[in-house]
Amino acid sequence: MSFPWPEPGTPLSQIPTPMPVIDEARMERNIASAQAYFTDCGKDFRPHVKTHKIPALALQQLAAGAVGINCQKITEAEIFADAGIEDILITYNILGPARLARLRALNDSISGLRVTTDNEATIDGLAATFDAARPLQVLVECDTGGKRCGVQTPQAAAALAARIAAAPGLQFMGLLTYPAVGGAAVVESFLSATMDLLAQQGIPCPVRSNGGSPDLFKAHEVPSATEHRSGTYIYNDRAMLRAGHCGPDDLAMHVLATVVSRPAPGRAVLDSGSKALTSDLLGFADFGRIEGHEDARITSLSEEHGVVEFGDADFPQVGEQVRIVPNHTCVVTNLFDRVVFHRDGKVTRVLDVAARGTVW
Amino acid sequence: MSFPWPEPGTPLSQIPTPMPVIDEARMERNIASAQAYFTDCGKDFRPHVKTHKIPALALQQLAAGAVGINCQKITEAEIFADAGIEDILITYNILGPARLARLRALNDSISGLRVTTDNEATIDGLAATFDAARPLQVLVECDTGGKRCGVQTPQAAAALAARIAAAPGLQFMGLLTYPAVGGAAVVESFLSATMDLLAQQGIPCPVRSNGGSPDLFKAHEVPSATEHRSGTYIYNDRAMLRAGHCGPDDLAMHVLATVVSRPAPGRAVLDSGSKALTSDLLGFADFGRIEGHEDARITSLSEEHGVVEFGDADFPQVGEQVRIVPNHTCVVTNLFDRVVFHRDGKVTRVLDVAARGTVW
Repeated sequence: MSFPWPEPGTPLSQIPTPMPVIDEARMERNIASAQAYFTDCGKDFRPHVKTHKIPALALQQLAAGAVGINCQKITEAEIFADAGIEDILITYNILGPARLARLRALNDSISGLRVTTDNEATIDGLAATFDAARPLQVLVECDTGGKRCGVQTPQAAAALAARIAAAPGLQFMGLLTYPAVGGAAVVESFLSATMDLLAQQGIPCPVRSNGGSPDLFKAHEVPSATEHRSGTYIYNDRAMLRAGHCGPDDLAMHVLATVVSRPAPGRAVLDSGSKALTSDLLGFADFGRIEGHEDARITSLSEEHGVVEFGDADFPQVGEQVRIVPNHTCVVTNLFDRVVFHRDGKVTRVLDVAARGTVW
Repeated sequence: MSFPWPEPGTPLSQIPTPMPVIDEARMERNIASAQAYFTDCGKDFRPHVKTHKIPALALQQLAAGAVGINCQKITEAEIFADAGIEDILITYNILGPARLARLRALNDSISGLRVTTDNEATIDGLAATFDAARPLQVLVECDTGGKRCGVQTPQAAAALAARIAAAPGLQFMGLLTYPAVGGAAVVESFLSATMDLLAQQGIPCPVRSNGGSPDLFKAHEVPSATEHRSGTYIYNDRAMLRAGHCGPDDLAMHVLATVVSRPAPGRAVLDSGSKALTSDLLGFADFGRIEGHEDARITSLSEEHGVVEFGDADFPQVGEQVRIVPNHTCVVTNLFDRVVFHRDGKVTRVLDVAARGTVW
């Protein structure tokens, strides 16, 4: 037995909490402004669907002009392919016979599947799985300062590109990177140096994919990049606000919560703990910003409770709602099976977070 | 389309990662040893199901001798009630007409429902919902140093108890508290002082419920407590190991992960990020312990990747598995729709995490 979900028109004040709520108008504006920027600077835009995990929203992003989508798991990509999306980039080293078999089936079912790699073992697995009748498009991931995945030098990138280009079942498509800690110049330098090496070898490199939300509106500072990937821009969050990517009126996701206890002076407890907000701090000292009570601090979380310390006399009483700007939207999305959308505070629709919990 | 789940007998080395895997023998031993302790010291034991969220495991805990279970959400309690469990304590201030209606229905359907409260607004909502024909059992939550929910003084506890006792539809059952930062003496002092006040008013207080896993085996140090609640003890985790509650051989949950990149010397990337391990640090400096590579550190997580820094020459290569002891089991459980169980490294069963994501 599950709670009845709110009907369209229901005021947000009447929905059970905790619950992420998405402002349709702000989300539409975020989609439109990012797309307008990329159209203007002549780059393809490829939203990362991890932020929402909802096919209907990916279709809105594509309708606005996005070239395709970005996923990180095969099972995630399958859900979006089932919704009719043909252009999907999986930015992951895909390994092992079970995943490779699924990847081959997915490549047979859509027209524009791409994956990334940063190592020979992954390339060899892909090369053994695909053949020239239906080749797989592959990009080489480059580490331009993020210190996660990615080859460390243009020489290493070019060597992997050659290995891909030599495999009959694989088609080398280009290069991919993720936020440059050192800024646009580092990315540009890595990409252009690798392109030079590839040109010397006669290996075409049509795609150069850059990424990240905080610097989204600086994507033009990397002229060699042909496309940009970004997830968080659709909802935005406290970290994007701090980074200067957006303003307070661009925050499309809030987590609605209810005060369930006021146990001591200056302390309140919300029904939103790490099961609603996650423990992601992203450099903040507390777990979210409470709208209208910016001096209040969510100082600790247990799974079902968030403890707030506040100084203002008008902090809400037991039973009253607060609206929280989460530190990080993407991880909040992954906690909820469904999410509520609204326009001007009235529910518009409730959507399944269809790709929540996709681990493979 | 979902991945096929492993059949019984499958070696863990062959299952797709990331995946929490539970050692049946260790779990059985954890259940048995905690229960033996509480039986020996004459206290009721009430496991908190948040750690596993699986009815079949709650039934194992009850079969071992547990008096009932502990939940924190109505929707969570309903799932366990549907599995035939009659004695359920919901340790939460339940507020609002939708939840109160559901709580009344649940109280009609099982014989032993109890809730907690720490404020008058919650009591008044409960009092208006229940009647003498089918009263609801209510405990008062006391803050003995945890600084979450709970009244601050024995006098405040006694005042709420009197308010509950005066409501025709409510039955005051006793007191509840959660870990004493100040140790057992603080809990004992708060409970006994409140019991004295209640005795003076002629209000019976049959239940005194204490809680927490780290100090589980010290529960006898609180003589006034009649029962103890604990969740994590069934799986254990890195935090329980640090607290001295368990040894390495009592760790029943591991997160299996695969190395997907070795991008630079001394750096590896796992397929386990915050969607598998969560960002819960619980005071640790990194996001989990890798078995057999205790000097390696999981230094950062993105959603789908965990970055490891290591110094040992034999750290696994791309495509090889590692076993991670998570910092905090309960939050890992909440991320996965299903969990794999094993005995001696061979799969025994795959169970739905039925109460995952219950938010209301």
